[in-house]
Amino acid sequence: MPVGYRQLPPLSEIPGIRLAAVAAGIRYQGRDDLVVMELAAGSRAAAVFTRNAFCAAPVVVAREHLHRAMPRYLLINSGNANAGTGEAGLAAARDCCQALAGLAGCDAAQVLPFSTGVIGQQLPLERVRSALPAALSALSASAWAPVAEAIKTTDTVAKGVSRQLQIDGRSVTVTGIAKGAGMIRPDMATMLAYLATDAKVEAESLRACLQAAVARSFNRITVDGDTSTNDACVLVATGAAGGAEVSRAHPDYPALCEVVAQVCERLAELIVRDAEGATKFVTVEVSGGADSRECLQVAYAVAQSPLVKTALFASDPNWGRILAAVGRAGLQDLDVSRVEIFLDEVCIVHRGGVAPEYREADGQRVMDQEEIRIDIRLGRGSARERVWTSDLSHDYVRINAEYRS
Amino acid sequence: MPVGYRQLPPLSEIPGIRLAAVAAGIRYQGRDDLVVMELAAGSRAAAVFTRNAFCAAPVVVAREHLHRAMPRYLLINSGNANAGTGEAGLAAARDCCQALAGLAGCDAAQVLPFSTGVIGQQLPLERVRSALPAALSALSASAWAPVAEAIKTTDTVAKGVSRQLQIDGRSVTVTGIAKGAGMIRPDMATMLAYLATDAKVEAESLRACLQAAVARSFNRITVDGDTSTNDACVLVATGAAGGAEVSRAHPDYPALCEVVAQVCERLAELIVRDAEGATKFVTVEVSGGADSRECLQVAYAVAQSPLVKTALFASDPNWGRILAAVGRAGLQDLDVSRVEIFLDEVCIVHRGGVAPEYREADGQRVMDQEEIRIDIRLGRGSARERVWTSDLSHDYVRINAEYRS
Repeated sequence: MPVGYRQLPPLSEIPGIRLAAVAAGIRYQGRDDLVVMELAAGSRAAAVFTRNAFCAAPVVVAREHLHRAMPRYLLINSGNANAGTGEAGLAAARDCCQALAGLAGCDAAQVLPFSTGVIGQQLPLERVRSALPAALSALSASAWAPVAEAIKTTDTVAKGVSRQLQIDGRSVTVTGIAKGAGMIRPDMATMLAYLATDAKVEAESLRACLQAAVARSFNRITVDGDTSTNDACVLVATGAAGGAEVSRAHPDYPALCEVVAQVCERLAELIVRDAEGATKFVTVEVSGGADSRECLQVAYAVAQSPLVKTALFASDPNWGRILAAVGRAGLQDLDVSRVEIFLDEVCIVHRGGVAPEYREADGQRVMDQEEIRIDIRLGRGSARERVWTSDLSHDYVRINAEYRS
Repeated sequence: MPVGYRQLPPLSEIPGIRLAAVAAGIRYQGRDDLVVMELAAGSRAAAVFTRNAFCAAPVVVAREHLHRAMPRYLLINSGNANAGTGEAGLAAARDCCQALAGLAGCDAAQVLPFSTGVIGQQLPLERVRSALPAALSALSASAWAPVAEAIKTTDTVAKGVSRQLQIDGRSVTVTGIAKGAGMIRPDMATMLAYLATDAKVEAESLRACLQAAVARSFNRITVDGDTSTNDACVLVATGAAGGAEVSRAHPDYPALCEVVAQVCERLAELIVRDAEGATKFVTVEVSGGADSRECLQVAYAVAQSPLVKTALFASDPNWGRILAAVGRAGLQDLDVSRVEIFLDEVCIVHRGGVAPEYREADGQRVMDQEEIRIDIRLGRGSARERVWTSDLSHDYVRINAEYRS
């Protein structure tokens, strides 16, 4: 079970979006694994994709299509990543788009394909194709919850959130769903996230809004330091709420960006809470850095340290491992005598050594919690960064030794 | 048990070196945990230390002493790292040196202290002091094996090797011992290594010899990507073999450097073979890189990927995870269509996708072995690097969730 998250909350419909999940039998039996999402004509979409050089075939095709046309459909499958599949995989991704476009009466470039699951196996194209008519006839505005279920792989629970805000006095909604539990690290991960709003947003402003939101959410989490081949995050603005188009100059644009970022942050947080084998949800805060880059360097050195993560799993206040990870993060001329480290409010390291007032019982009390904050103060500047991570448990090894991702 | 290594081989004595291991009860009961190594007058010593900014008190003191005087004694304890211990820890490291110097009749700066074990607890100074007289009276030329045992922490087996070579027609010996099984990664690790030779070597040439050897051995291994606070590697040349002093210009200097490097490589290899929880010994070879730096970047991305390491543990030929790790290593403009990946001799990735002739049974056959070579060919240059690593097993998590390092 995820740390501090039990089930999908009610998700708000987004006028202009209809969606459906069906069972195509791509890899799983007895569950939905294929999703079609229809965007009303005139919708704008922005997307960010994995930076992995071996990006999957659907990522290549989605990037290409997004460049060529205004998307009308997103086509998502779980169970097969269509990655490492060479020319055949590219052809399969294109064929899926063509098949959906043929049935829906649009151009193939108006379909964006997404896949998540096992790497290196050819996509069973016929199963996708056969399931498309059923998906199209099932399209409805209310299917966010079954869609959030259908995109899961090793996720134990579906992830989503809705938020409202006012633009020009009209109420608009942002709903987002995501999947991902392993192969997670900054620069996107085995992670798919879809956000939609009924706000009407100018194209370039929509892209900027998404990029800023991803930077402070999905690019600030790590489970295992691995970046997948298939990551994608899409933000659709249907414009169905009406009103004037929102661009950067609009007074409510910052509020929209803030809500989109909050939705992304919540989804990113849920991914870490549901991390493979996770028993802890850990916030690593680094402040007092000379710049953001070095704060992140320290935060990731701690958040990705297998020794820190196994100590977290054991609820062991073994702060020496945190100190060692800070020390090896590679900061130039780090003056350790200025470094302070706290577990929640408990000061464990002061002036480079164990704090004189530190008592093991205090550290133990914090480590016994499910949610832990590691607060590192570098004492050399005013930059600050925050990263979320999980612990490294027996179940992480079991899941990844048994499952083919 | 380590992968492909059962027990310490016979180690050759080094004229000019006497050593002893005794039980001081620092942390462990019923085993030796304190070592004194005596270097004959006129011995030269070179050392490299951890680059962790939070380096341990004995590292600070050893660096200082090495700078000030010709060492006559090494004093090593296991069970307590004397790291993160602030001013009190520094005082304790100095006091130990002073105590040994007083008994042995040398200057305190001629004693180099080393500690390995739990971080953040004060060294039990009285126990060290009380055990010193027994250690000094037990000094003998033949105690290499008990000393290799005494420096162990989570190591399951003592590690050492001896090699001979000829210098100016005289036979000289290099013997090395090491400890380390976790918190291991390039730039030194929770690793102590001591090498001695009876060759007579000029000081600067000895340093260069050690640095080159460490670069191609201890700095080319990773278990968990963590660099410890206490790493040290020392090379002593007693000169007891006689003959002219060897400096860089000497015709046999390259041969000496090669043998010292081979001893370091063997010790580095044994550390990985005995890595915490290891069931596999894995060689990651990257060739065809534009330079050495990018080969190492790819090699470590693969060697430190928890997903690759859990697949290795499961003997699962899940090559997609290797491909994903190569893709996220951050190489500029990597042309994936030129990348080839082999498991031993089996080609799994060709032109960026699964090789047409690849059969799962072939990959499985390689993965079933205890020793596996992952061979990555980047196709963009002539640089080449090799890194050794282990898998990520249930036992790694168990050991590190239970043990306080």
